[in-house]
Amino acid sequence: MGKLHEECGVFGIYGGENTNVVSATYYALYALQHRGQESAGIAVNKDGVIYSYKDTGLVNEVFTNETLGKLQNGQMAIGHVRYTTRDGKHRSNAQPMVLNHIKGSLAIAHNGSVTNAYELREQMELGGAIFHTNSDTEVIAYAITKARLHKSSIEDAILEAMKTIKGAFSDVVMSPQKLIGVRDPYGFRPLCIGRLDNGGWVIASETCALDSVNATFVRDVEPGEVVVIDKNGLRSLKSDIQVDKKGLCVFEFIYFARPDSVVDGTSVHEARKRAGAYLAKAHPVDADVVIGVPDSGLDAAVGYAEESGIPYGIGFLKNKYIGRTFIQPTQEERENLVRIKLNAIKKTVCGKRVVMIDDSIVRGTTCARIVRILREAGAKEVHMRVSSPPFLFPCYFGTDIDSKDKLIANNHTVEEIRQIIGVDSLGYLPKENVVQLAKETHLDFCTGCFTGEYPAETPEEFNKQSKYTKPIEKGGN
Amino acid sequence: MGKLHEECGVFGIYGGENTNVVSATYYALYALQHRGQESAGIAVNKDGVIYSYKDTGLVNEVFTNETLGKLQNGQMAIGHVRYTTRDGKHRSNAQPMVLNHIKGSLAIAHNGSVTNAYELREQMELGGAIFHTNSDTEVIAYAITKARLHKSSIEDAILEAMKTIKGAFSDVVMSPQKLIGVRDPYGFRPLCIGRLDNGGWVIASETCALDSVNATFVRDVEPGEVVVIDKNGLRSLKSDIQVDKKGLCVFEFIYFARPDSVVDGTSVHEARKRAGAYLAKAHPVDADVVIGVPDSGLDAAVGYAEESGIPYGIGFLKNKYIGRTFIQPTQEERENLVRIKLNAIKKTVCGKRVVMIDDSIVRGTTCARIVRILREAGAKEVHMRVSSPPFLFPCYFGTDIDSKDKLIANNHTVEEIRQIIGVDSLGYLPKENVVQLAKETHLDFCTGCFTGEYPAETPEEFNKQSKYTKPIEKGGN
Amino acid sequence: MGKLHEECGVFGIYGGENTNVVSATYYALYALQHRGQESAGIAVNKDGVIYSYKDTGLVNEVFTNETLGKLQNGQMAIGHVRYTTRDGKHRSNAQPMVLNHIKGSLAIAHNGSVTNAYELREQMELGGAIFHTNSDTEVIAYAITKARLHKSSIEDAILEAMKTIKGAFSDVVMSPQKLIGVRDPYGFRPLCIGRLDNGGWVIASETCALDSVNATFVRDVEPGEVVVIDKNGLRSLKSDIQVDKKGLCVFEFIYFARPDSVVDGTSVHEARKRAGAYLAKAHPVDADVVIGVPDSGLDAAVGYAEESGIPYGIGFLKNKYIGRTFIQPTQEERENLVRIKLNAIKKTVCGKRVVMIDDSIVRGTTCARIVRILREAGAKEVHMRVSSPPFLFPCYFGTDIDSKDKLIANNHTVEEIRQIIGVDSLGYLPKENVVQLAKETHLDFCTGCFTGEYPAETPEEFNKQSKYTKPIEKGGN
Amino acid sequence: MGKLHEECGVFGIYGGENTNVVSATYYALYALQHRGQESAGIAVNKDGVIYSYKDTGLVNEVFTNETLGKLQNGQMAIGHVRYTTRDGKHRSNAQPMVLNHIKGSLAIAHNGSVTNAYELREQMELGGAIFHTNSDTEVIAYAITKARLHKSSIEDAILEAMKTIKGAFSDVVMSPQKLIGVRDPYGFRPLCIGRLDNGGWVIASETCALDSVNATFVRDVEPGEVVVIDKNGLRSLKSDIQVDKKGLCVFEFIYFARPDSVVDGTSVHEARKRAGAYLAKAHPVDADVVIGVPDSGLDAAVGYAEESGIPYGIGFLKNKYIGRTFIQPTQEERENLVRIKLNAIKKTVCGKRVVMIDDSIVRGTTCARIVRILREAGAKEVHMRVSSPPFLFPCYFGTDIDSKDKLIANNHTVEEIRQIIGVDSLGYLPKENVVQLAKETHLDFCTGCFTGEYPAETPEEFNKQSKYTKPIEKGGN
Repeated sequence: MGKLHEECGVFGIYGGENTNVVSATYYALYALQHRGQESAGIAVNKDGVIYSYKDTGLVNEVFTNETLGKLQNGQMAIGHVRYTTRDGKHRSNAQPMVLNHIKGSLAIAHNGSVTNAYELREQMELGGAIFHTNSDTEVIAYAITKARLHKSSIEDAILEAMKTIKGAFSDVVMSPQKLIGVRDPYGFRPLCIGRLDNGGWVIASETCALDSVNATFVRDVEPGEVVVIDKNGLRSLKSDIQVDKKGLCVFEFIYFARPDSVVDGTSVHEARKRAGAYLAKAHPVDADVVIGVPDSGLDAAVGYAEESGIPYGIGFLKNKYIGRTFIQPTQEERENLVRIKLNAIKKTVCGKRVVMIDDSIVRGTTCARIVRILREAGAKEVHMRVSSPPFLFPCYFGTDIDSKDKLIANNHTVEEIRQIIGVDSLGYLPKENVVQLAKETHLDFCTGCFTGEYPAETPEEFNKQSKYTKPIEKGGN
Repeated sequence: MGKLHEECGVFGIYGGENTNVVSATYYALYALQHRGQESAGIAVNKDGVIYSYKDTGLVNEVFTNETLGKLQNGQMAIGHVRYTTRDGKHRSNAQPMVLNHIKGSLAIAHNGSVTNAYELREQMELGGAIFHTNSDTEVIAYAITKARLHKSSIEDAILEAMKTIKGAFSDVVMSPQKLIGVRDPYGFRPLCIGRLDNGGWVIASETCALDSVNATFVRDVEPGEVVVIDKNGLRSLKSDIQVDKKGLCVFEFIYFARPDSVVDGTSVHEARKRAGAYLAKAHPVDADVVIGVPDSGLDAAVGYAEESGIPYGIGFLKNKYIGRTFIQPTQEERENLVRIKLNAIKKTVCGKRVVMIDDSIVRGTTCARIVRILREAGAKEVHMRVSSPPFLFPCYFGTDIDSKDKLIANNHTVEEIRQIIGVDSLGYLPKENVVQLAKETHLDFCTGCFTGEYPAETPEEFNKQSKYTKPIEKGGN
Repeated sequence: MGKLHEECGVFGIYGGENTNVVSATYYALYALQHRGQESAGIAVNKDGVIYSYKDTGLVNEVFTNETLGKLQNGQMAIGHVRYTTRDGKHRSNAQPMVLNHIKGSLAIAHNGSVTNAYELREQMELGGAIFHTNSDTEVIAYAITKARLHKSSIEDAILEAMKTIKGAFSDVVMSPQKLIGVRDPYGFRPLCIGRLDNGGWVIASETCALDSVNATFVRDVEPGEVVVIDKNGLRSLKSDIQVDKKGLCVFEFIYFARPDSVVDGTSVHEARKRAGAYLAKAHPVDADVVIGVPDSGLDAAVGYAEESGIPYGIGFLKNKYIGRTFIQPTQEERENLVRIKLNAIKKTVCGKRVVMIDDSIVRGTTCARIVRILREAGAKEVHMRVSSPPFLFPCYFGTDIDSKDKLIANNHTVEEIRQIIGVDSLGYLPKENVVQLAKETHLDFCTGCFTGEYPAETPEEFNKQSKYTKPIEKGGN
Repeated sequence: MGKLHEECGVFGIYGGENTNVVSATYYALYALQHRGQESAGIAVNKDGVIYSYKDTGLVNEVFTNETLGKLQNGQMAIGHVRYTTRDGKHRSNAQPMVLNHIKGSLAIAHNGSVTNAYELREQMELGGAIFHTNSDTEVIAYAITKARLHKSSIEDAILEAMKTIKGAFSDVVMSPQKLIGVRDPYGFRPLCIGRLDNGGWVIASETCALDSVNATFVRDVEPGEVVVIDKNGLRSLKSDIQVDKKGLCVFEFIYFARPDSVVDGTSVHEARKRAGAYLAKAHPVDADVVIGVPDSGLDAAVGYAEESGIPYGIGFLKNKYIGRTFIQPTQEERENLVRIKLNAIKKTVCGKRVVMIDDSIVRGTTCARIVRILREAGAKEVHMRVSSPPFLFPCYFGTDIDSKDKLIANNHTVEEIRQIIGVDSLGYLPKENVVQLAKETHLDFCTGCFTGEYPAETPEEFNKQSKYTKPIEKGGN
């Protein structure tokens, strides 16, 4: 299917006195950049009129002094960063989406994945709708504005639309007068609320965005909740849709969210340290030093070291200047690339038995090269520990993992993988430990990518063979 | 009103064997660049799927090797260039517009101005429509796709939509299988058909675009006609809407179209030479040399010289390197700018009585500076002749003339203007000569900007005070 | 030989009260852009310290608001534009050259070609000199600064250096306190002096640069003259080098200089009109219309028309939007390129016997394509007239003509060329008329490229087989 | 003084069979990027001719596919990255410097600072030399080429030139046939030799550049040594200049070199861990967790944790997307910037007594903000430990520290600084521990910035008040 995945970061701000909502959103998007590097955008609401700028690229590529200067400050703003997917970069898919309907303007920034998007779109087109993009967001926008025709407020329209939209969505919506946060009934993706000193409000995918604008964490948006912020303050509405169990994505703790964020009550850094500790219990080894692969393996390495009593060491230097424009002249030089990005610190590993922690093994190639660098630096033994179980199943709720047939764990046993990457021992986080990582969180989890069991219907259950086998293409960058 | 004017150039190609429709469209847009410098775009149809790229800027700014390389060749393509307006540059207003509806994809490139766009848009929004832009094109797209719900073909849907769309439109439309040209019943804007040697077809705003791709001129699209090109060749359909008289914009001959184009039977160059000849008859003068202000006054100058018997001379050198990025450091240096763009050739004018021809006087400032340059170069007398009557009335059908209160002719008599620009005599083309310029053309003309009489309803007759006093803003470049 | 040719434009300004010397130089470089499109640069002298900015590219590419903003205003400035040569673009060859020597800073902008550059450079290197570029300018700079060691002023050092520097140079030099213009004893390249209303002084390659900054023409710098401008005004020094006859390049009138310039007393436009008139006398033909190939053939076409009595017509529309970034996707589309740049105005040529004037035929390919366009537009006969004699010999004094073996006139008779380009008749300007074109000029001329006879020694007489068979390369753009 | 400081990274490669010396240099410059972010350049030697490309900017800004593509592969190459200094960015100061002298081409990449540069330059100018830049490198180039006039080889010329050049230089030089590394007699800056598997040789400022091209470390270049690599392999020459004691810059271990490098025998990472251990001994404290300020404080934090027994923790998340183009809209938002670059991980520090390690305190402002972030995240106590002694004296040998009067340690006691940055206790590395950090290194050290005692003459001893009070300025970027 040509569908675009929607893992993203969203942010909304309802300013207090003297808040510069544009620059606050700009800063917050930097804090959320890890959630999406394909495109970035800001929509600002000045006296009920919505202005926006968005494009493909990182926040610092999209927003220059020139482009940021075009956005005058206003009373509210929302922002969005979007994940790079296999389907490439399409400017028209950048968000926030801004549109006009009979009741005025509307801006939406969406994080998630609508599982019945094709079905909904077909119904809408039969009613005469036209679509400019092939993103879920436009489908959500239509559902909301359609409901708005006979509902007396935008928030009621959203509650109405939620009855038809299936899947994952943790979105911010901006109308001429209101900033609204909405989270699907399963709560797949995080969404939290913060408060500014001057009385303003903030909604964001992660708490690290709150910190970036100096907002105080208030609480998470609950699954199935619609929070409405306007001049009267914040009100909460609840969808009456009932679900058997919630489904917060456990992958947020393992990989996606930033370590300094707290997601639905649990510190992401702490969850990763715990993963390291569980690994130490499940796969102990006699060794001299524990190192993490930067940056994703560092937190778990500290946890493994503490639990095992083996000293923690800094095993690698990561080159911070390697960016998007790094040039790879020839195929044969590929091998060398990992070496340029990551160099071993010989003094730490030379002559040592090393435990090396990373958060995942996707295809195995990079991993094998890193192990070779350690060996060339003199490591006597290399014991790899992975702070997640093997990915074995696709995600339908907003995480774009590599295609199934390329995932090494789908085609090889653990022993085979051990040989391929060339380590002395290999251990994954046991599946049963996964939900224990976020023990402060009082929601159920979706662990579908590890178990194949999903809390909600998957798209297969909605999609017949439809006309959307080839998407409309709106051109490149 | 915040409405964007829509004077533009459109192009469509249905390739024959081995036609590179993308590069043909790229070349044709260069030929049409004079019709619009704000934005450029190409949509290509490859096996029924439409890919596009568009952005603000000139053709050579929008299409680089990188961006053009993203558009694979296909069987059909349409292209668009858009006029710079007071409302600034908005990427989201770039065309062609590409969208998806229940019957598949559709691309539209529009030239003209829909006079009841706001009324139509309001009706559509009441039916649940949402709008991403504030351009006429999206309104036309909705009207067509809505009609398509109950019409069995795209061409029938277009004929149906024509019943509701008022004003000027000479558009190209591309569906998965067809290339379609459509011209409003008044025929405000030109549109012509050409044929490639290999059997392919071309539709364009002007014949100069046909020449650029080496196509042979076949005929003009008639007012009220819909021409459909598909694998079976070209078919013609006629709208059954009756209008009292046609209304081809006479301004196309005077100013807008390229001199090497032939519009509805009349050579634009010849029409301008004729304007010069009529000027010579209406405003004769005893002089030594006739010069034209480059480039717009050159054709008429040749006509004036021939009719009057006064020698034609080259009076100015125009600097061809002054581009968009020319920097004007200070206000006081404004005076100097005309001098850098245009220098007098002293040998031609020094000690001479000079007849200077230009196609119009808008605000008078630039004109006064040019006259001063001639005087400093030693011209003994300067007699200005203008190859059009004074603009006194607004255009509602697709030409964006300066606002009424800034037009010098609205606030001053001819004698006052003569004094302001500092010439010895001043003569405008008599109003009665205007329709004689294009004597080979068998259509009626719209001369509204000179006479205030329009062949069709103006927007004032449609627009009540609506909510669209402030447009939605979708951000800058 | 890898030597870079040096045809360029130079400009210098010694400001009067409140002159912005930086922006004046910026404007003047636009006026001189036709003399060089490879690189541009400005050096400004503020209180004796010289700041500069230069790069490869057109003036509008090199100088943006950002880069121009880096140059604070000062009391004097010099500027330079450089010709594109076969040797490609090298940033390190951009001028003005700014350097430091024992007496302070020095900036030089050079137009010409030093015929004994290699010999001089070798001598200098034997004395310990090092060179950063392979341009003549650095050799001149060394010669001047070396002489300055034992001469008491920069102007005396220049006079001394002139004794050793052979060939063509019309340069501006800026020291901490002085602006200096210098022209070689033969006067190969033009150089003129202008005055600002506020008392400032200007030196430029052509008078069109004077016009661009609103300066009044004072006089030309004479061959062998050094003019020194400082706080005491302008002083003139004369080199005591005697030459048998002067050698102003006649090509300046035929091709290189801008029509609105007056070079050593003769209007360039007038010289070209005269070339047309001589052509009419030498190669008369019975025809209906005379047209020029834009822009280079227009002046001569007017002259031919006047002399012959055949009406002047506008035969072509030149597309003004085709710039550097125009993309030529495939080889086969080459043919089409001329068609996009230049379109025939059918009404002018259809069914007519056409005289077509251009200033030269270099390889013949483009010419043949233009003729084909005229024929396709319906021209009954095409008679080509060329407003210069055939180029048969190389230029050693600063003009970079195509290599000898590619020049069509070197390999074919006039009759053969006529057939190749497909015209009914072909006539070149007779060699004997060349020096009559500039009859107001009281200098002798160099007509070496037409006759093979040069007024001064050619490089062959200086250069033994030296080590400079391969130049040092300082990298690309 | 306007002199530019010269702290930089240099690299040279003499390729073996099939080595791509251009891409190897490109990769090596990435590894050395931390030594200089102002400019980057590569000079490649192809069959004795030297081609180069260089510009201001980071390696990934200077070298794009387009610019790198201009450099054909050759047999040898040298590269350079340059430090950002107070004097701004000047393209003409980018290196390698490539020039031509009587014996052919020469390229130089320089790291260090010539203390008698002005004196030497004045002498050279008195002999007729001209200078294009105001960098030390041009002075060194002149000294070498001047010596080459009467010496029979480039290496002998270098040994001769070393007799006059005072100060710090660890340079690579490339002649048509040879790659040469040279280190001043004091050995201020590091320089090492590596070998490729295919027999090629590499010279670099740090071993991390050797690792990046997969070269094996051979040995360091010794103080006063000249190593010559050509087709006969590597030869060593020794300067006969005697110095009392060597002077390797101890700051390389503390701050400048990359942790994964080994400088003159000592692992930089290990030296920093030792600094942490010495700190733990000198300034013990009762605390719950030890954290490092990323990235400069991490190594020492591990050392402090190990020595003290207090657990190591990850206290901060550093935003890796904040780049050069980050926009700081208003002054008041400055405060917020540190917060966006660095966020506390609450779980690590909340309710804890925290030891925070960084490598230096320069002005104190940033440090105070970081401490505030820790306190807001709930840290109960913050004890800062600095892994270097206070900087109290200027460096004359190639390190550009902030100006003396802005360094907080010059104006405040330790107790005052403690109050300013708001910590509960503050401890610096004792001066006496500094030379113990690199105990495997058998050279003497320069600790001038901490002690004010320098191993060699400082510029004050050379420079009388000379004309170089204002440098020549060659323009900006």
